Amino acid sequence: MIIQKTTQPRIHNFDPKNFTFGNDFIDHMLICEYENGKWGEPKIMPYGPLGFTPAMMGINYGQACFEGMKAYKDKNGDVFLFRPEKNFKRINKSAKRLAMPEISEEIFMEGLKALVDIDRDWVPYGEGTSLYLRPLIFATEEALKARIATKYMFAIVATPVKNYYSEPISVKIADYYSRSASGGVGSAKAAGNYAAAFYPTKLANEEGYEQIIWTDDNTHEYFEESGTMNVFVRINDTIYTPPVSEKILDGVTRDSFIQLAKHNNIEVKDEPISVKLVLEAHSKGELKEVWGVGTAVVTNVFKALGYKDKKYNLPDLKEEESFSLKLKKQLVGIQTNEAEDPFGWRIKVEKKY
Amino acid sequence: MIIQKTTQPRIHNFDPKNFTFGNDFIDHMLICEYENGKWGEPKIMPYGPLGFTPAMMGINYGQACFEGMKAYKDKNGDVFLFRPEKNFKRINKSAKRLAMPEISEEIFMEGLKALVDIDRDWVPYGEGTSLYLRPLIFATEEALKARIATKYMFAIVATPVKNYYSEPISVKIADYYSRSASGGVGSAKAAGNYAAAFYPTKLANEEGYEQIIWTDDNTHEYFEESGTMNVFVRINDTIYTPPVSEKILDGVTRDSFIQLAKHNNIEVKDEPISVKLVLEAHSKGELKEVWGVGTAVVTNVFKALGYKDKKYNLPDLKEEESFSLKLKKQLVGIQTNEAEDPFGWRIKVEKKY
Ligand SMILES: Cc1ncc(COP(=O)(O)O)c(C=O)c1O
Ligand SMILES: Cc1ncc(COP(=O)(O)O)c(C=O)c1O
Repeated sequence: MIIQKTTQPRIHNFDPKNFTFGNDFIDHMLICEYENGKWGEPKIMPYGPLGFTPAMMGINYGQACFEGMKAYKDKNGDVFLFRPEKNFKRINKSAKRLAMPEISEEIFMEGLKALVDIDRDWVPYGEGTSLYLRPLIFATEEALKARIATKYMFAIVATPVKNYYSEPISVKIADYYSRSASGGVGSAKAAGNYAAAFYPTKLANEEGYEQIIWTDDNTHEYFEESGTMNVFVRINDTIYTPPVSEKILDGVTRDSFIQLAKHNNIEVKDEPISVKLVLEAHSKGELKEVWGVGTAVVTNVFKALGYKDKKYNLPDLKEEESFSLKLKKQLVGIQTNEAEDPFGWRIKVEKKY
Repeated sequence: MIIQKTTQPRIHNFDPKNFTFGNDFIDHMLICEYENGKWGEPKIMPYGPLGFTPAMMGINYGQACFEGMKAYKDKNGDVFLFRPEKNFKRINKSAKRLAMPEISEEIFMEGLKALVDIDRDWVPYGEGTSLYLRPLIFATEEALKARIATKYMFAIVATPVKNYYSEPISVKIADYYSRSASGGVGSAKAAGNYAAAFYPTKLANEEGYEQIIWTDDNTHEYFEESGTMNVFVRINDTIYTPPVSEKILDGVTRDSFIQLAKHNNIEVKDEPISVKLVLEAHSKGELKEVWGVGTAVVTNVFKALGYKDKKYNLPDLKEEESFSLKLKKQLVGIQTNEAEDPFGWRIKVEKKY
């Protein structure tokens, strides 16, 4: 690994108590180039522009996939990653589906740890804060023919974050637009999936909903995901979440919630959830909670579901009654080294550089 | 429009009789930036790299769409565009679906003409050659939050081309993978649609098929498109093509073929084509031709259809018996100014710069 440290660090201008999410980049980034059938040597260098023309294939044909993960700081200043091997496996699953070369475990893991280590001062400490890490792979070859590219870049960029949704939100159940096709790329973290969701989400926003609950494109009868989160439904004391499939992203937070729920002796059913089931439970007063989970927000509690022209309000549970908040609290405790980690999920980033 | 001509033209090294498709870029490109809610002044400048970091939103969230169109040179050296207003409208349709700002007709059309005019020496003359033009819009803002970007670039890059498929090809009818979802972005020329198709196409290639005939993701019973082309089927003396929808790209070549067919008194049916209909026609000896159409190749004749484990060979028609070749010849004649243009499709690029 080549390490070229910045001579103009910006960390001194960074105020960990006062920053906005997603636009402040840490001093360094990692890049690694793929050419002639193999990945070259990874390089950590100052964050900044690289030279790409508008003929870059990643931007023309969408060969681009990414990961989203976080590093957390504890009260002693130690820094931790959370289940990074899941993101490593998933980026390669995404890459494969988009006919892109897979990255080696060594480049991904060592690169990630070295970058976080070097820029550990950028990891904020305090409730709801973390360093958001964005590994991505994209086609860099310049050519105008719609075919598999021969040159790629693996990069990791990062930005300090505060959880961006804290308030409960209202979500609209999709009855026309959809996120993924059967036999499509819904289970890949493909760049194109996100752009495709923006316009429908904008329309939902205009109707007063913050996000969409995506349903299957064929019948719109089954829940898939919610915004860029996996979705959970609690009916009485049982939790449901749609099984992962080629249409649904296999979320790290989803998997962690399922394991934590079982650990708490909460019944979890990993099975299809129909809109009908949810609305019937609502009318019987059995629909207790609906929420989304993902790395960015951990949990986003829903206060209302919109379906066709109706709005269904959800109970406003106290913290001690809520499964979603209970599980969130436990998960955050593990992530930030404030609680025991019986699952071995937390990985400390050692000081090396 | 700002015009900054290159001081190091590469045109003298370009051999119009001997070049490969898609990697030789013309001396100039057009760029135009969108910020604070509006497009700035377009600029023609030397083709080359611009500075983008790996946090560029277009590469992370896939807000990127493009067009593909051509300029043709006639024997007098005059240069023509073909129905460019169709591409102008379509790029904005794509942009809208991806929640991107639309480009003005003036920037698109005047920019296109100026670029082709300035680099007119790069337009090759001779059968099957042309200058392939790639207008595109992509998000340039650097941020790691999955939301609509606030900064974009409109660009036009171009490369001299020769038709890349000339031989008839074998195509596989999709029975598992798919290209677009109901309520998805199939009718947009969205970057992400192309990457999504590469892996299934690679699998088809491994089975000995050059392309895929995409079918609906729900039942796989109806034809949608073929590779990156619209598809036509001839049964006896009637031509069928699937109607355009939110799942099917509204191709310029498709529309031109329909109009030309009518002009030739050939019956055209713009209606759903089922796999069953096609295979039944084949078994009765009524399936005469199946072909794809698009700007890149104009027409690609299919010699065999693969479905499940079977391969169905198609008749090898003589040129005078073939509707696809007849219509292709007429279309190319209009495009290259070797035939009358009763439709008013050809637009001459005047010398101005
Ligand atoms: C579409 C989609 N679904 C679900 C998730 C949640 O996955 P994870 O928990 O791994 O962040 C994400 C990523 O945040 C996502 O982009
Ligand atoms: C998916 C797809 N279908 C069809 C076509 C044909 O469209 P056009 O005739 O406008 O080139 C294209 C573009 O070439 C395409 O990308």
